[in-house]
Amino acid sequence: MLVNDRRYKTLWIENEFIKIIDQTKLPFQFKIISLRKFEDYCKAISSMQVRGAPLIGVTAAFGFAASMRENSSDFNLKNTYKKLIATRPTAVNLKWSIDIISKILYKTDPSLRFFKSFEFAKTILQKDEEACESIGEFGSLLIEKIFNRKNDVINILTHCNAGWLAAIDWGTALAPVYKAFRKKIPLHIWVDETRPRNQGALLTAWELKHEKVPYTIIVDNAGGHLMHEKKVDLCIVGSDRTAMNGDVCNKIGTYIKALAAFDNKIPFYVALPSSTIDKNLKYGLGNIEIEERSSKEITHIHSFKNKKIENNLIYFKNAKVYNPAFDVTPAKYVTKLITEKGICGANKKEILENINNGKNKKKN
Amino acid sequence: MLVNDRRYKTLWIENEFIKIIDQTKLPFQFKIISLRKFEDYCKAISSMQVRGAPLIGVTAAFGFAASMRENSSDFNLKNTYKKLIATRPTAVNLKWSIDIISKILYKTDPSLRFFKSFEFAKTILQKDEEACESIGEFGSLLIEKIFNRKNDVINILTHCNAGWLAAIDWGTALAPVYKAFRKKIPLHIWVDETRPRNQGALLTAWELKHEKVPYTIIVDNAGGHLMHEKKVDLCIVGSDRTAMNGDVCNKIGTYIKALAAFDNKIPFYVALPSSTIDKNLKYGLGNIEIEERSSKEITHIHSFKNKKIENNLIYFKNAKVYNPAFDVTPAKYVTKLITEKGICGANKKEILENINNGKNKKKN
Repeated sequence: MLVNDRRYKTLWIENEFIKIIDQTKLPFQFKIISLRKFEDYCKAISSMQVRGAPLIGVTAAFGFAASMRENSSDFNLKNTYKKLIATRPTAVNLKWSIDIISKILYKTDPSLRFFKSFEFAKTILQKDEEACESIGEFGSLLIEKIFNRKNDVINILTHCNAGWLAAIDWGTALAPVYKAFRKKIPLHIWVDETRPRNQGALLTAWELKHEKVPYTIIVDNAGGHLMHEKKVDLCIVGSDRTAMNGDVCNKIGTYIKALAAFDNKIPFYVALPSSTIDKNLKYGLGNIEIEERSSKEITHIHSFKNKKIENNLIYFKNAKVYNPAFDVTPAKYVTKLITEKGICGANKKEILENINNGKNKKKN
Repeated sequence: MLVNDRRYKTLWIENEFIKIIDQTKLPFQFKIISLRKFEDYCKAISSMQVRGAPLIGVTAAFGFAASMRENSSDFNLKNTYKKLIATRPTAVNLKWSIDIISKILYKTDPSLRFFKSFEFAKTILQKDEEACESIGEFGSLLIEKIFNRKNDVINILTHCNAGWLAAIDWGTALAPVYKAFRKKIPLHIWVDETRPRNQGALLTAWELKHEKVPYTIIVDNAGGHLMHEKKVDLCIVGSDRTAMNGDVCNKIGTYIKALAAFDNKIPFYVALPSSTIDKNLKYGLGNIEIEERSSKEITHIHSFKNKKIENNLIYFKNAKVYNPAFDVTPAKYVTKLITEKGICGANKKEILENINNGKNKKKN
């Protein structure tokens, strides 16, 4: 997508090495860094220079390759796996990606290990891009349908950042927005600030600004009021994990926004790569352990002053806080799921159809 | 209520002058200031050294008296009204208070105007305290009922600050909490941060800490998840304006929290002085103009650093934001209203009974 009118991805290959956008500096500074040594990759993941499930998975795969370039022994193979897992212990896509490649590499002659792992990384890089673009195509059909009825600017509310910065390109929740915008459908996006880390205000708004999609940031409290005022035509959010019954685990606050959409008869769509559907999870609600994150994410905030990023205390000292990172939106409040294989209802039957056959793809 | 183990009110009389807590400095600094000249009162209201509908009304009344002490002419009477109205043009209680006193004073001999207005101010000061304490008594009965069933710590979620800092003492939404706590009912309060101005995290949490009521601050996004996890037994919020059908206009975000309570079958109580019930407003939803406040409330935040309060930019420069200050919660999501006259359903029949006769008071 565009940054200062130039086309970028979050990660790209240059001479067998990788370049990334340093996301810890966004939106205050736009900085590109090279990842060369294995250590660079580990640091990029653990310090959140790269973030978002798909992007972490791809970066880890290239990290594996970098480590194999340095030393392709069995010992280092084992060590590489351990070190990568430790960078973000709860990242599902990271584990998925390095589980596959390490399994392959154990059966591969050490002399071919770098080549094999680099090829693997390139493949998942490409697959992620294709999946996101496909989500965008399908999702844009839903927006188009609503536009054909309304024939006026379509107001879309989104929560957190499920944009291209969380993937390689396009994103998940924002992919339909970017695709619809390219089809010249007039759009305006309500961006939930998304406390505590404000990924909406900081990342989603920044993405949209550079893509020239009209947007307005609101506090997380405001969405219900906007729906009452008929200023929201649809919602699209992402998903970190989706249960087989259609329950969606996503950034904290998604659930209450879905309730408001339901109360106001506004469609609530969830866009996700089918890889985030957990086939072993029958029901989401009550069955997903919710990560509790550092209280400092709530009590402190980044600000930008004298061209420097500061992190300051915004509460009184030793204020007691609790910081759950995700919540679960029950399937009954999800209008449709949008995956790279098509659009389906948030229920077991349609989800199975979607992941197994991609039948909906042909239908649409 | 207690501050550093000493009993305070937000405003008190000392030798015909007034002392207040400077709320612009809270919770970072606790500072008491004297209001002597009429100008001091105007500044206290306009700069939000006092805030909360009841407290503003009382301060304005004492301001009127201070002005009459300085000059009790007809000319100055008119001028005083004009200047006070201009301090917070949308504050309903301020207008209510100075409408009454100015009407009285026009019929009063100039030599008695200071005395009359000072007496009036003392009366509404006392009435506000009594009303809040009575709300506390009634509300605590509801908490007690739930405690008798559960016989374990009662978890209460509240939004924004409707505590004693917004009134003279006790508060509205927090009055039942303080009363129940004095009855030794074990409590824990979930405090919504309440973006954009964070009155929950800054003021409500500070009040509770000093009163030694266990509390935990959460981001506004988290309440729904806590309800899913059965960590909320009831909600209590305040109201800025209540329609005759029971629709409640309160701080932005109240509506979606009420939806979450409804979805999880958790009682959602609204505590309010009956003076905030607008007899001319048949229905709230769609009939209340919602104040849009400065974008700077969203894009900038107060932080505390090197013993100084700073106000820093937390978004990228020129980010587009929209800042509606209130929303309307439909009556169907309000379990009960708690006024100083008793507890009643959020419907016209019971509200009329409550405000006209106070019959419920006797019943309870």
